[in-house]
Amino acid sequence: MPTASVPGNRGRFITLEGGEGAGKSTQLRRLAETLREALRARGVELVTTREPGGSPGAEEIRGLLVTGETGRWSPTTEALLHTAARRDHLERTVWPALEAGTWVLCDRFFDSTMAYQGYGLGLGRGLVETLQTAALGGFRPDLTLILDIDVETGLRRAVARHGGEDRYERMDIGFHQRLRDGFLDIARREPERCAVVDADADLDTVQARIRDAVTSRLGLVS
Amino acid sequence: MPTASVPGNRGRFITLEGGEGAGKSTQLRRLAETLREALRARGVELVTTREPGGSPGAEEIRGLLVTGETGRWSPTTEALLHTAARRDHLERTVWPALEAGTWVLCDRFFDSTMAYQGYGLGLGRGLVETLQTAALGGFRPDLTLILDIDVETGLRRAVARHGGEDRYERMDIGFHQRLRDGFLDIARREPERCAVVDADADLDTVQARIRDAVTSRLGLVS
Repeated sequence: MPTASVPGNRGRFITLEGGEGAGKSTQLRRLAETLREALRARGVELVTTREPGGSPGAEEIRGLLVTGETGRWSPTTEALLHTAARRDHLERTVWPALEAGTWVLCDRFFDSTMAYQGYGLGLGRGLVETLQTAALGGFRPDLTLILDIDVETGLRRAVARHGGEDRYERMDIGFHQRLRDGFLDIARREPERCAVVDADADLDTVQARIRDAVTSRLGLVS
Repeated sequence: MPTASVPGNRGRFITLEGGEGAGKSTQLRRLAETLREALRARGVELVTTREPGGSPGAEEIRGLLVTGETGRWSPTTEALLHTAARRDHLERTVWPALEAGTWVLCDRFFDSTMAYQGYGLGLGRGLVETLQTAALGGFRPDLTLILDIDVETGLRRAVARHGGEDRYERMDIGFHQRLRDGFLDIARREPERCAVVDADADLDTVQARIRDAVTSRLGLVS
């Protein structure tokens, strides 16, 4: 049983990650529906949440992070603010839910801080890792799904959707390449936690791939 | 020369610390006047600043920290937010000033995070130290003045001034004792950086003690 290491009736924590245009938001909604249905039979609930944010305090910190000019914060300050928001999100939303046996599906988590600030913006792995270890006490997701798509395709999709208004969508192609490589490197370093899902396909195909990954990793959706 | 280790014409960074009712704000204003006068002859400027805050971004983070209910943030989240604000303050205000040869006098710095969150709120030294080391790259003040006063006297003064409305003034006496012991422990661990100033005296006497400490440590005010 891949789930044997989780004590008692604690819920599972699943995170969804990926760069721009990987279809993360759509797939999150679809996966939430699938999981909710599968868990209902067990009498288990699912909550969906997001980072940065997911608790009243963390949403206020998100406000500082997503508004204003690009470069308003340095990568180091951004990593610290993301980590502060994450700690609040965990304490107020995620940990209480997991303790109550509820499953939690989260749009982005610490791998995004590592990929965006650590790899993409050049902060490096060391500081980000130190912050996460110190602030989260070793807590990690049970499963992380990384939606992977080549940079040109992802950006084309993202720009078609948002008109290139997102602050990260305006970054150069080198940034997005480092971001993708970063996510893939994270997955290589933690293959038991991370599943890379090829997102270069139509929505239904990607949805099926995600379902397969969840089934094989957590043994739930069949 | 106590100043020989500072390279080139870099300015000095002086921080003022202390618990509630130690007279920190008044003494900061007086010390700023004294320093400004002494530095004028050298053609050197002084800026005064404060934490949390001291840069536009850090002041916004301060807004999250000082408003709302006590207990709105856990001690860990508070320490992370203070560290994020500190990094921004250093990058945008303190480091550019020091590089330009300007001296900086700061109302509270990382010793307050250690004393309040680490000792007072029970977070412990380890996490606070890890955060400061990771986020600030080993940067430390040239001189830290710690205004020390016994807890009962300090609280009596603070309450007379603010009517007990400050969020820390409402904490129990045990918290304030841990805070004071924390500051004294910090000074014992770094006697070359920290000078403890007995603040249980009239304003002029305390001012003279601070002036003596600055003179003996930095060789400036005579």
